[in-house]
Amino acid sequence: MSFLKGATVGYDTVNNKAVFIDQTLLPSKYTEVFTDDYGEMYDAVKSLKVRGAPAIGVFAGICIAVLINKAESEDYNTLFAKLEKICNDFVKCRPTAVNLKWALEKMLCEGKRSKEDIKENLKALALKMIDDDVAVCRKIGEYGAELLKDKNAVLTHCNAGRLAAVKYGTALAPVYVAKEQGHSIKVFADETRPLLQGARLTAFELKNDGIDTTLICDNTAATVMASGKIQAVLVGCDRVARNGDTANKIGTLGVAILAKHYGIPFYVCMPFSTFDFTISDGSKIVIEERNPEEVTDFWYKERMAPTGVNVLNYAFDVTPAPLVTAFITEKGVIRPSEIEKYI
Amino acid sequence: MSFLKGATVGYDTVNNKAVFIDQTLLPSKYTEVFTDDYGEMYDAVKSLKVRGAPAIGVFAGICIAVLINKAESEDYNTLFAKLEKICNDFVKCRPTAVNLKWALEKMLCEGKRSKEDIKENLKALALKMIDDDVAVCRKIGEYGAELLKDKNAVLTHCNAGRLAAVKYGTALAPVYVAKEQGHSIKVFADETRPLLQGARLTAFELKNDGIDTTLICDNTAATVMASGKIQAVLVGCDRVARNGDTANKIGTLGVAILAKHYGIPFYVCMPFSTFDFTISDGSKIVIEERNPEEVTDFWYKERMAPTGVNVLNYAFDVTPAPLVTAFITEKGVIRPSEIEKYI
Repeated sequence: MSFLKGATVGYDTVNNKAVFIDQTLLPSKYTEVFTDDYGEMYDAVKSLKVRGAPAIGVFAGICIAVLINKAESEDYNTLFAKLEKICNDFVKCRPTAVNLKWALEKMLCEGKRSKEDIKENLKALALKMIDDDVAVCRKIGEYGAELLKDKNAVLTHCNAGRLAAVKYGTALAPVYVAKEQGHSIKVFADETRPLLQGARLTAFELKNDGIDTTLICDNTAATVMASGKIQAVLVGCDRVARNGDTANKIGTLGVAILAKHYGIPFYVCMPFSTFDFTISDGSKIVIEERNPEEVTDFWYKERMAPTGVNVLNYAFDVTPAPLVTAFITEKGVIRPSEIEKYI
Repeated sequence: MSFLKGATVGYDTVNNKAVFIDQTLLPSKYTEVFTDDYGEMYDAVKSLKVRGAPAIGVFAGICIAVLINKAESEDYNTLFAKLEKICNDFVKCRPTAVNLKWALEKMLCEGKRSKEDIKENLKALALKMIDDDVAVCRKIGEYGAELLKDKNAVLTHCNAGRLAAVKYGTALAPVYVAKEQGHSIKVFADETRPLLQGARLTAFELKNDGIDTTLICDNTAATVMASGKIQAVLVGCDRVARNGDTANKIGTLGVAILAKHYGIPFYVCMPFSTFDFTISDGSKIVIEERNPEEVTDFWYKERMAPTGVNVLNYAFDVTPAPLVTAFITEKGVIRPSEIEKYI
């Protein structure tokens, strides 16, 4: 029996557990994990069992609510101290995605505001985060589908689909909504090395939904664009600076440059909360550097590079704003030059 | 005991065997294979045990000499018929690299010319191909090293190093020659999906030679270029059309577009014989499409993409001539606009 029913993360309020699909086991195994253990929650985010900026944010909210509700104490000061301690630690888990920070700050703020009902209030906020995420992604899908009316194929990088949010996703929301509206759009999915989110997750969820999907190696995107097969690029993102510089999965920058070269629109699909107005430009975004083994031997039957070779394994890159055609958010389609209006 | 002593392919004339390093076993196992069996030779090229355009050409020459010398008959017509039959079949093994076709045509031409000494003449020609390849690559290295005098790091894609030729290689020859001349150049190596020639071969041979090498996923090239770390791109190639359009490993086109975006020179290093003056432009180059399993589950502990997903697995792409700064050949450095002078 599925608790999540098509969602990626959830809150089992009856048993006070955070629930998530272990995405590191996809596409071969679908497993829903129930937990109220902070170590397991932290590990789930750190090791990408839960990944995708919106999903991480909502999941962090659920985790906080579960942990505070699990506490035996009913004393506000004790509970708030615990909340503060967890939030300060959890935020370090993945430095690039703004949603984690955003969700933890919201929980902390709610905890500060609450005096009597901190447990109930945090639970209610976590449940609201879930509903809001679904509504926001649906809106992104509607705005995006409008832009895809005259297009029949898009390219996407990494996974910013259902599995990256609660439902619908961000980059793939326009494809899902277009399909509901009777307009089938083909998707070319970059496999997205080193962790292969495109092959494992994007191809999995699109295929499950009956959408015509073609998997390519990251280095094949240029050839597919050159052949005229792609009419738009849709990507998600982890953080957007005030000037429009966009941090997303490593390889996004390259796709954006190729799209510009071929005159293909490049859309960044995201909850409006992904804008981080506290930073002026992309140079201020911390780029997480991950374990070299992800490149040299993770996934493989045997090590695929000589021992001792240097490896640069950036998890993200920053796409300068001039390469972005528009940001598709739940508040509408925003060109980089229009961001200032929203601050 | 090594028969090849640092070379990639060779001719054991005492035992009349073609010799090659099985590159599919690198970097974990170094194995020299001795063979006089056509099936094994064809398979060696088809399954990329011998790969790299120059190496394939020379290896095909050696194989032909071995097979004709192995024949029991001494009758010219019988031997020539056999030669023709093998060449017509072998050429289909890999359609993109011009060197295979070039080498087989040279052997066929020599066979046609010879009447008395076809066995000896083909053997002599195969040995000459080996020596010529070493001399040609050394020249490419010298011309290239000259262009790298003021540079300290290059990016390369796939493997066009020692392991792609008999010795020295093409794209990496300038790096090796520069090192001999006392000038150390760092190399950033794209891993080159799906077969990971960059991780398995380029990183292996450069590290063995003590050259500072950093392995990156293909999708990280843009970020490394954006950071200012790269002063030139060096790639090999499989075939160059009369107008300068260049076929090489899938992903080369993307690297060329990125290099242009960042104003980094993009050099194609190759034996002059890689020019195919019989074709006017890149649209006439047949791009080999390989097995989808190379993308979805080759190398992996378990299948990494859902079953039944479409896959586009092009082995090569075509980089339009305007993206090429120059071709570095044994005849000198040739700009795309200068090719016509050489026809």
